Parts: sequence; C-alpha cells; structure tokens
Amino acid sequence: MAMNGAQALIRTLVDADVDVCFTNPGTSEMHFVAALDDVPQIRGVLGLAEGVVTGAADGYGRIADKPAATLLHLGAGLSNGLANLHNARRANTPIVNIIGDHATYHKRFDAPLESDIEAVAGSLNGWMRRSSSTADIGTDTAAAIAAAQDAPGRVATLILPADVSWGEGGTPAATVPPTPPRTVASDVVRSVAEVLRSGEPVALLFGGRACRERGLRAVSRIAQATGAKPFAETFPARMERGAGLPNIERLGYLAEQVAYQLDGVRHVILAGARSPVSFFAYPGKASDLVPEGARVHTLAEPADDVITALEELADEVAADVEPELAPAQRPELPTGELTPQNWAQVIGALLPENAIISDETNTSGLLVPMATAGAPRHDVLTLTGGAIGQGMAVATGAAIAAPDRPVINLEADGSAVYNISSLWTQARENLNVTTVVLNNRAYAILRMELQRVGAESSGPKAKSLFDLSTPDLDFVSMAEGFGVPATRARTAEELADQFRRAVTTPGPHLIEAMVPPLL
Amino acid sequence: MAMNGAQALIRTLVDADVDVCFTNPGTSEMHFVAALDDVPQIRGVLGLAEGVVTGAADGYGRIADKPAATLLHLGAGLSNGLANLHNARRANTPIVNIIGDHATYHKRFDAPLESDIEAVAGSLNGWMRRSSSTADIGTDTAAAIAAAQDAPGRVATLILPADVSWGEGGTPAATVPPTPPRTVASDVVRSVAEVLRSGEPVALLFGGRACRERGLRAVSRIAQATGAKPFAETFPARMERGAGLPNIERLGYLAEQVAYQLDGVRHVILAGARSPVSFFAYPGKASDLVPEGARVHTLAEPADDVITALEELADEVAADVEPELAPAQRPELPTGELTPQNWAQVIGALLPENAIISDETNTSGLLVPMATAGAPRHDVLTLTGGAIGQGMAVATGAAIAAPDRPVINLEADGSAVYNISSLWTQARENLNVTTVVLNNRAYAILRMELQRVGAESSGPKAKSLFDLSTPDLDFVSMAEGFGVPATRARTAEELADQFRRAVTTPGPHLIEAMVPPLL
Repeated sequence: MAMNGAQALIRTLVDADVDVCFTNPGTSEMHFVAALDDVPQIRGVLGLAEGVVTGAADGYGRIADKPAATLLHLGAGLSNGLANLHNARRANTPIVNIIGDHATYHKRFDAPLESDIEAVAGSLNGWMRRSSSTADIGTDTAAAIAAAQDAPGRVATLILPADVSWGEGGTPAATVPPTPPRTVASDVVRSVAEVLRSGEPVALLFGGRACRERGLRAVSRIAQATGAKPFAETFPARMERGAGLPNIERLGYLAEQVAYQLDGVRHVILAGARSPVSFFAYPGKASDLVPEGARVHTLAEPADDVITALEELADEVAADVEPELAPAQRPELPTGELTPQNWAQVIGALLPENAIISDETNTSGLLVPMATAGAPRHDVLTLTGGAIGQGMAVATGAAIAAPDRPVINLEADGSAVYNISSLWTQARENLNVTTVVLNNRAYAILRMELQRVGAESSGPKAKSLFDLSTPDLDFVSMAEGFGVPATRARTAEELADQFRRAVTTPGPHLIEAMVPPLL
Repeated sequence: MAMNGAQALIRTLVDADVDVCFTNPGTSEMHFVAALDDVPQIRGVLGLAEGVVTGAADGYGRIADKPAATLLHLGAGLSNGLANLHNARRANTPIVNIIGDHATYHKRFDAPLESDIEAVAGSLNGWMRRSSSTADIGTDTAAAIAAAQDAPGRVATLILPADVSWGEGGTPAATVPPTPPRTVASDVVRSVAEVLRSGEPVALLFGGRACRERGLRAVSRIAQATGAKPFAETFPARMERGAGLPNIERLGYLAEQVAYQLDGVRHVILAGARSPVSFFAYPGKASDLVPEGARVHTLAEPADDVITALEELADEVAADVEPELAPAQRPELPTGELTPQNWAQVIGALLPENAIISDETNTSGLLVPMATAGAPRHDVLTLTGGAIGQGMAVATGAAIAAPDRPVINLEADGSAVYNISSLWTQARENLNVTTVVLNNRAYAILRMELQRVGAESSGPKAKSLFDLSTPDLDFVSMAEGFGVPATRARTAEELADQFRRAVTTPGPHLIEAMVPPLL
C-alpha cells in the first residue's frame, strides 16, 4: 500500500506500541495530522500550549513505562515545550519528540518561523536526528523509538520536514530493540558490600527505577541489616509509596537538610542516584553535599540495572532480613482553618486506592510525604528538573496512561499558572484528575531563598516581586474558564468534603485550598 | 561607594536610560532582585511566566524605541520566554535579555536546573555574552545595551552567574553608543530611481522603520509620482496608521494573495523589507513569491537608514508630489449578531485617539485594517515571528511604555491561551489595556491550512484537533481569575457598549466577542 511519510511514521510508532501522540500542531504538521485518521491505533491528544504537550508526554512515560510521541510545531513549538522536556530529561522519561519543520527546500528562505531547531533541541543532550527523505522516515522513527528507551530513558528528538512528511514512498520500519540496562559486575556489588560491612556510617542514596517496589524492598533490607541510612533521590521521577511498602525518606531540597541527614556519614553509596549537590549555590556554602572526608562509591549508574544490583547486594549483606514495611495508617481528619500542616493531613486521610500523585507543591508540600506514608499504595511523580510548571501537565499525561487510576495533582499557585490550560485537556479527555492548588498568594519559596542567599536587606520592590496577592489569583474562575468544575476550600472540613467528592466523581475537578504560607 | 555586581549592572542600565525590567526571577537572581531597591530609577515588572516577560519587553521596545531589560531564571526561564524572543528577533526589537545562571563554580555539579543556556540563546542569532567577573559586569552590561540598539535592533543576551551578581567590586560603566543605521549611498538611490522611471511595473516593499510616518509619506509620494505599487511588509513590528497618514496595504499572508498583489510586476524594490517568501511551504507551490522573471533591487537593508533613503528617492522621482493621506472616516456602527465582518467595524468606529493596537487576531482580523484606515491615528503591532502567544504580552509591555495611550489587544482564542497570565500583570500595574478575544471556538487557521497543504481527506481525528469547543473556552472566567474585569458580547451592539466602556474606564478590561469563524 502506498504511503506518505507521515503515514509510515505513525505506523512505525504503533507497531512499536507507541500509540499516544500529544500535540499542538501547525501548518507544517498538517499531513501528520491528516494521517492520524489513517491509523486507527494512534490517539491524538491536543494541548493548548506546548508545555502541556511535553509535560503530558513526561507524565505518560513515567506511568506507562513506554514513550508517548509529541508533535510540535517548528522551533517555536519546541521552545514553548522545552522547559518540560528539560524536566523529562532529568526524569529519564522516554519520549519520542517529533518536531515538524519547514520543507527541506523552504528553509533557505528564512521564513518568519525559521529558527535553529538543532541548537535548541541539542540542549536536551538526548538523541536527535533530522529525517531527510521520505524513504528513510520509517527507519528514522524506529531509531528514535529505540533511542528514547535506551536505558535509563531519554528524550529522542526527530525533526520532520514537511516535505518528508507529505512525500510519497514511506515504508514503516520494524521495531528496534533499545539498549537494555547494563548489568552491574558482581565484584562491584561485593566491594560495596565490604563498605557496608566496614562498621563505618554509610548513607545509601538510590534513584531511578530503584524508587519502585523491588528497589525499595532491597534498600530496606540492606538498611535493616547494616544500619546504613537509606535516602531516595530528592526529586524522583516516580516513587512508589504507601502501606505495605518500605517508607524511605527522600534527600532534602535544602543543603541544610542534607547536612543534617548525612551528618557523620563516612561513605555514600550511589545506586542509580547522583552524588548529592546543592540545588543552587549560596554565598559561602558548599555546592557538593557529600560530607567532608566521606567517600563516594557507585553501585549502579542510572543506565545500569540498579534493581538487580540492589537485590544482589541485599542478598549479600541481608540474606535473611525482611524489609520494613509501612503499616496502613492514615492521619485523622483535621478541623478548622486550613494551615500549611493540616491540608496535607486531609490528603493523607482521604487519598484513594491506587492513586497517582503529581506533586508540584514546593514549600506547601513539605508535610505531604509524612501524611501519606501509610495511605493506600500510590505513585508520586515529582518535579525532577526544577523548571516549574510541570505538575498539571504531568498529571494530564499520567491520567491518559492510567485511565482507571485516580490522579491527584498537588500544585503550588505560582507553578499552576504556567500550564493552567492543562485543565482544558483534562476536561476534553474526561480525565480523572483532582487538582488541589495551594494558594498562599506568594512565591513563598523565593521569600525564603532571598534570605538564604544572604540578600537580607530587601526593600519593597523585592518583596513585591514575591507577592501574588495584587490582584489575588482566583483559580476557581480560571478552572471554570477551561471547562473544569472547581470549588474553594478555606477550612479542613471544606477541603475534606470537596476532595472526597472530587475523587469519587468522574472527570477532572479543581479545588483551590486557601493555605497560608509556611514561612 | 562599594557595590555588588547586581547593583553595578542596574546602575549601568539606568545610566543608559534602560529603566524597566520585566522579570520572573528565581533563586539565582535574588541579589539582582534585592538590588532593585538600591536603585530608585529602575522599575521591576513581574510576569507570572516568562512568555509574558519577553513578550512585554518586545512590546515595550517597539513603543519606547529603547530597550527594556528582562531578568530570566536560568535555562528554564529562557526556554519559557524563547518563543516571544523569537518574535522580538523578527521585529528587530532592542532587548537587554538578562539570564541569571548558577554561580560559576556551581555549574560543574550539573544541578537539576543546569542546562546549556548558550545553545538555546544562540538560536536567537543576536548578541550574547557570559559575564565572568564582577569587575567586568558594568562594561558587559554597557556592551549589551549598545548591542541591543545596534541598527536595526536585536536581542542582546547577557548571562549573569549568581556569584558575579553577588560578588563585591562592581563598577557601573559609561553608556556605549550603538551602531547607527548605515547611510545608503546616493548611487544606490539613483539606480533605484532609474528602475522607477523605467516605465515597467514596479512593486515597492518596505518594512522596519519605514512603516512609521516619515517612511509612509515618502513611499506614498513615490507611488503617486511613479505608479509603483507600494506594500508594507506582511507583519510589521510597528506600523503607524489612521486618518492623516498614507494608508498603504500590507503584503498578504497567503501566497495566493501575494501572487494577486504582485501580478505583472517586473521589478521589486526592497526598502528595509525582505524579499517576499511564503510563510510555509505547500506541495507544488513556490516558496519564493517574487513573480517569475521579476528583478529584485535593494534600496535599503533593515540595518540601513531606510527612511532617509526613501526620502531621497522621493525627492529624486517625486519632487513636487504630496503623499496621499487617509481621510478621517469611520465605519458606521453595525447591528445584529457578531460576524467575522462586523466586529472589526465596531473597532474601527470606536477606536480611541492615539491608540496602540496589539493585533494577534489571525483569521478573525482580516478586515481590521480596512475598518481602521480612517480611524484616529494609531500604531499597530503585529505578530512578527509567527510564534503565537505574543499579543497579550506585547500589549502589556506597550502599555508600560506608553501609560497615557489606550492599548487595544485584538486576540485570537487559540493564541490568547498561551500567555493569558499577562492579564494579571495588566491588573497589577493598572494598565489601560482593553483585550478583545475573538472566540470562534476553533483553530480556524489550521482548518484552512489543512486544505491548503492538500491534505483534504481529513477525518474526525484531524478535525477534532482544530476544535476548541469541547469544552468551550470561557475567557470571561479566565480574565476574572487573573483579576481583570470581563464581559461577553454576542451582538455588535453589545460589543460597542462594552468596548466604549472599557476604553473609557481606567485599568485593564477583557471582552470576549463570540464571533463565528471566517471559514
């Protein structure tokens, strides 16, 4: 059957089980859009801005454990989606990132939307290829799909000129197996076991896939048997939590927290996590958070089979030891005005079974992990790359990947604004996402950071730049503007009522929780 | 007086009359933020997302004819603001684009927000420098300010590491004069005059500064005297229009329109405009829109003194000829349900004196130029780079630059969503911006483009990707969510009433005009 490039591309995607394409297309993508109707297996999901598109692809990939495709419009679409691609890169999320471009012969005319796509996409340090002929589009696509899934996962960018897309003579290509995780050598496992047996204080930092059940169980066994202090990486892409799973603390965001957590440690073992560094630099403070004099040992890099390595290590040092599992235990439902503390207890008390939490609460969310440790088992997706504005989009993609699971998006007010139109996609696709926006009317984290960097002598101009109360942001109105029913909660009782109703009523809902700043 | 880097930077800015800084800062910018209070002359304007920040800087520069500064947070902030910087680049708007970065010694730790700023900013093809020491920050800033204003204007990116900002020993630097426009040689003017005297059909395409009064008058004289057909570039950064000014048609967006406009032309003269090319490529259609066999003659490049060149050319070929000026003439106020035609007549009938129009109406705005040709004199700012989502932000910056002028933002629904939080900045700064969102519940332009690219056999999936009606976007609710009073108009009478009230009441307003699609 004769096919154009776009049809061959999409068939190659669905043959490799890549069957969701998040998109905000433009003219140069019209043949791709038309081809969606030629391939029944592909689902096109529209976002009103590219930050929604790329963030949703990230959330999808984290939950589905396979890539979604994106379809972006030229360099402009890539630019708008770039911050959430950065977060996806830090999450090692597999994404087949398709960027439509002008026709090959059109580029030299430097039309208004012409820009240097390679330079911008290259900043993602992933895989990148420009498809140069319709005959090759199938193999280019198969290569991109494999590259996206090479361990530990990455953003694979395929640049698709319009004439390569509309040209005839496309052929779908067979699926290419991605590079699997590398096996960790047994002598590495044994030498790390020696460190654990040394009797000196050890911290075990783990990340990536080790934040799932098998990894957590192995880590817990090792910690039980050896006394090593285990910490999950600060911002895991996906962490399994709740009753029946080991409840393991994450390394703190603030250098001061990490100093406390790693105090006295002589050895840091890395298992799929990176050596701890400060999120930002602060005058006179260290960037490297490994305690003075401590040695760093790598059990597994992110691209390694970290789970097997941890299990082998556990078998070595904790053969007969069972992991410590969190008991089923929820906070009591609090009462009274909402506070930075009690709202998290409401979530912990009412979190539904098998939930997915997209957590972009920043300062407001400090107490969420404690409040949810004994809640029913769930996944937590965090802001991996620090580029705010991903929470709503990630929640959207997660809900596409797992339509039967309730998705809870805990969202800071400042971050919520970035990709607020995610709500429209949630309404359009009738996704079961409950968004709780913590409206503290401030960039509260920046108030704190202004002090932490030592710029204490701040005046009214500086203070006003952290103030989101003139005018107040009204997230109930915004949500209704995007077609999502919304309510406002001022007390713990209201939040509980509204949350209970939202998670039991199909489709998206938003709750604006009027929570004062923590600081 | 001892100063840190940030203080020296800001003093250098205000000494060069750069006294507005649009920003969405983060931790690495905290010393800059604190320094805003040390320099009374600088005004910090907060945007809730970087697309607002960069788009506002673009609108400001177009109206103020001098740069604003931006302050962006690392590569993530740059990414979010990149699409509107692309538009600013195409507009040749002077912008001092300051990007905070991690401290110099912190970069090697590859903290979560680390990314390749140079690669991304380099895609703007502007001026770029990384400031490497506090002692140099003054001279680096002065160089950036000059580079931004080198004719014809550009985005000058200054990367500011946090420790360069917080370090002591900064010294403000004296203002550096930018490169002025190049003088066009008189023999070039004479040879173009020969073309105009040849008797063969000529089109005169002009752009940049030539779209202001002096340029328009010279162009009109030339056209009157020689019969040359004058056209403004398709998307001018700033075009002066209205009663008492020459009313000169813009080159069309669609290749078909341009073919009609340039039909029979044997010579194309370029005066600060680029040779006409198709916005996108279409199968089987030309990208180069210069008519077959026509010759292209360049009177002035964008970096040249195009206005003087046009005036010299006019003196050569039209010594005693006066320009043709548009009479004061407004459409009558229409009645009945809103249509793609009548809404523009309402704007033409009621446009206030000395207005600034930020036009991002796309398909809905086709008839605006005709309806406003005889309205009181005004400026029109268009979407120069094709990256949708600039109109609201540009309007915001224009209103900061000209607080005494009414700003009218005509906005398409799909484009409006991108930087909708511009409304919040308008409310916070109490700007006189009246936004009219043309809600046709569709990506109408893509419906048209799907047919134009020849992908006619579109099915339900393709069609659904252009449909913004499931659910309907409610811009009244969105505006209220961002603190801007809003109304909805379904008839011409309602639009007229609401528009009249909006432009005579201080502060921002939004009107959602329920206009059916043109196509």
